Amino acid sequence: MTVRATAHLTDDERLDWLRLIRSQNVGPRTFHALIHHYGQARDALAALPQLARRGGASAPGRICTRAEAEREMAAASAAGVTFVSLREPDYPLRLAMIDDAPPLIAVRGELATLAQPTVAIVGARNASAAGIKFAERLARELGEAGLVVASGLARGIDAAAHRGSLTTGTVAAIAGGHNSIYPPEHTALADAIAENGVVLSEMPLDHEPRARDFPRRNRLISGLAAGVVVIEAAQRSGSLITARMALEQGREVFAVPGSPLDPRCEGSNNLLKQGAAPVTEAADVTAALRPIFERPLQLSAQEPDRPITPSEPKGPSEPSDDERARLVTLLGPTPVGIDDLIRLSGLSPAIVRTVLLELELAGKLGRHGGGLVSLV
Amino acid sequence: MTVRATAHLTDDERLDWLRLIRSQNVGPRTFHALIHHYGQARDALAALPQLARRGGASAPGRICTRAEAEREMAAASAAGVTFVSLREPDYPLRLAMIDDAPPLIAVRGELATLAQPTVAIVGARNASAAGIKFAERLARELGEAGLVVASGLARGIDAAAHRGSLTTGTVAAIAGGHNSIYPPEHTALADAIAENGVVLSEMPLDHEPRARDFPRRNRLISGLAAGVVVIEAAQRSGSLITARMALEQGREVFAVPGSPLDPRCEGSNNLLKQGAAPVTEAADVTAALRPIFERPLQLSAQEPDRPITPSEPKGPSEPSDDERARLVTLLGPTPVGIDDLIRLSGLSPAIVRTVLLELELAGKLGRHGGGLVSLV
Repeated sequence: MTVRATAHLTDDERLDWLRLIRSQNVGPRTFHALIHHYGQARDALAALPQLARRGGASAPGRICTRAEAEREMAAASAAGVTFVSLREPDYPLRLAMIDDAPPLIAVRGELATLAQPTVAIVGARNASAAGIKFAERLARELGEAGLVVASGLARGIDAAAHRGSLTTGTVAAIAGGHNSIYPPEHTALADAIAENGVVLSEMPLDHEPRARDFPRRNRLISGLAAGVVVIEAAQRSGSLITARMALEQGREVFAVPGSPLDPRCEGSNNLLKQGAAPVTEAADVTAALRPIFERPLQLSAQEPDRPITPSEPKGPSEPSDDERARLVTLLGPTPVGIDDLIRLSGLSPAIVRTVLLELELAGKLGRHGGGLVSLV
Repeated sequence: MTVRATAHLTDDERLDWLRLIRSQNVGPRTFHALIHHYGQARDALAALPQLARRGGASAPGRICTRAEAEREMAAASAAGVTFVSLREPDYPLRLAMIDDAPPLIAVRGELATLAQPTVAIVGARNASAAGIKFAERLARELGEAGLVVASGLARGIDAAAHRGSLTTGTVAAIAGGHNSIYPPEHTALADAIAENGVVLSEMPLDHEPRARDFPRRNRLISGLAAGVVVIEAAQRSGSLITARMALEQGREVFAVPGSPLDPRCEGSNNLLKQGAAPVTEAADVTAALRPIFERPLQLSAQEPDRPITPSEPKGPSEPSDDERARLVTLLGPTPVGIDDLIRLSGLSPAIVRTVLLELELAGKLGRHGGGLVSLV
């Protein structure tokens, strides 16, 4: 999570942000680490080649050019898509609180929707007729109760949830880009959603979603919402990934009970066994979420460092070869805490974070939730 | 609950117990109060007319004659039905612990079944095909796991639960007498249950069950078991009464999740919302009950009085008219605690209990769970 301001980016800054997040080996967590170190995206962009070299990259990671970013901006604008940065007031507050919040979201529709109290509804693509009927009814009732419904535009439950809340406001977080709606037959549904709601993506406009993009997208669905309702989810289904992310993000998890004889209910029933709140009507959800919506949203107090200030030297201190080697020795394929790395290496937090950035930009480091990192 | 010994009653004592519980205005709680006061059923029988008169009965309640009790005994014996008293080792231990345990149960079948770890399965009479299939499977798997399955011989879920556990052992607690099986088409099922299990009734052999007998019977189903699994129960259904009784008796309550669109699942889903443990497979039940079965059964420590001993004077002290009036003034249609009556009246516990007995035998007092009484 990056400290949030409520100022708008200049066009140049927005372009730099887009270039940085579109550059190779820069995911949301790396982006936040770079901004933390360098203050400005432009300075981070300038430092990328050197950081990657120091991290041992055989070839420097590809950096998104200014021309490419300008083309994406223009294409987005032509498609009615707006970029909103984490620093800007239109960015959804709850989503900004997750530690891998996308620095920029590409949104289409009624942006005011993103400021409303939101609940997510997700479930099986191959849902039963009863599941689809219930999802649509629940979404409609939650909409009538003043909530925006977030989902993933998938077949089955997701589409039913969007349909039920089309007039009251719904948000579809998609795994591909805005010009590559998946499944293709939901293109018209996406258009309808954008009438009173929002279609949201963190991917380049023409990005065709691959399998791994869907779990990544699921964190946005739960991140947008104060709670996630799971309707019909098989074991090892994407909906359970969303539920797990919701738990990691501190969101409420609800599950709709279903017959133990229906494999499509196995995952959702297991959520009940694990303590998810049972839902059979909208009031079950609204009663549980009301106190949460009434609490003022506070950004996490766990911000590990002070934000950089203009009086401080910009840019990280440069680690020595010895320091770099000491840290690499401590790393392996098993995720370990950055705190542990600092303690065990005896290095300063700034040096440790710089080496990690270098490794990451060299494509050698993976970042996980909860401040964990591993070699990849 | 009456203090349990492990001695057998003599034939004469058994006859007296049967006469006492078959006498007018004597329910299980009154029975226990009478035995508590008089020690012997025979002495209680002798005192009944005077107690009822003092309680203001216009006519004395009908007392079951020795000849009537002998005829019931003989008929039971001819039907293969045995009477087991609360004082005897064949009486199920858990059932003996509920405060309105039947003093005598009429049982047919394999009495050893009553000593096994037991779980109850109950649910809708108009169950769905899926509900019936699941009930039968769950009962079979619980039976294979070494548990006896108790239920109520009703249509739908109950019958499926019995069928699934016929070979491993099942107990049917019925609302009528053994010669009046309800529904009549389950007569053959009752016979099959008695092969490896038990059919159990607290009613006279020829008693045809009336509507009010079913809730009363439900306390036996939950009382026999360490936990109750509810499969498909509508709102305000008998299965929910069993679940409520299970809670009052300190039993575990389980519920099988079902579609929110099926009214037959509304009651069971609501149990989930109230904290019942979700069940989709036998392991959910066995894992929760194992520690309970492993704990030695202890009779309640809440026995309100010392049991009577031979050195104490038998029979209650006789209340004065003034004392009786003082207590009656404190009573009304709203159930109040006996402890409160003792405190507010300033009378001795023995006097209060005697007046209550008198009122009860005059048909003027109702006893409820948790030591509550009211005028009727």
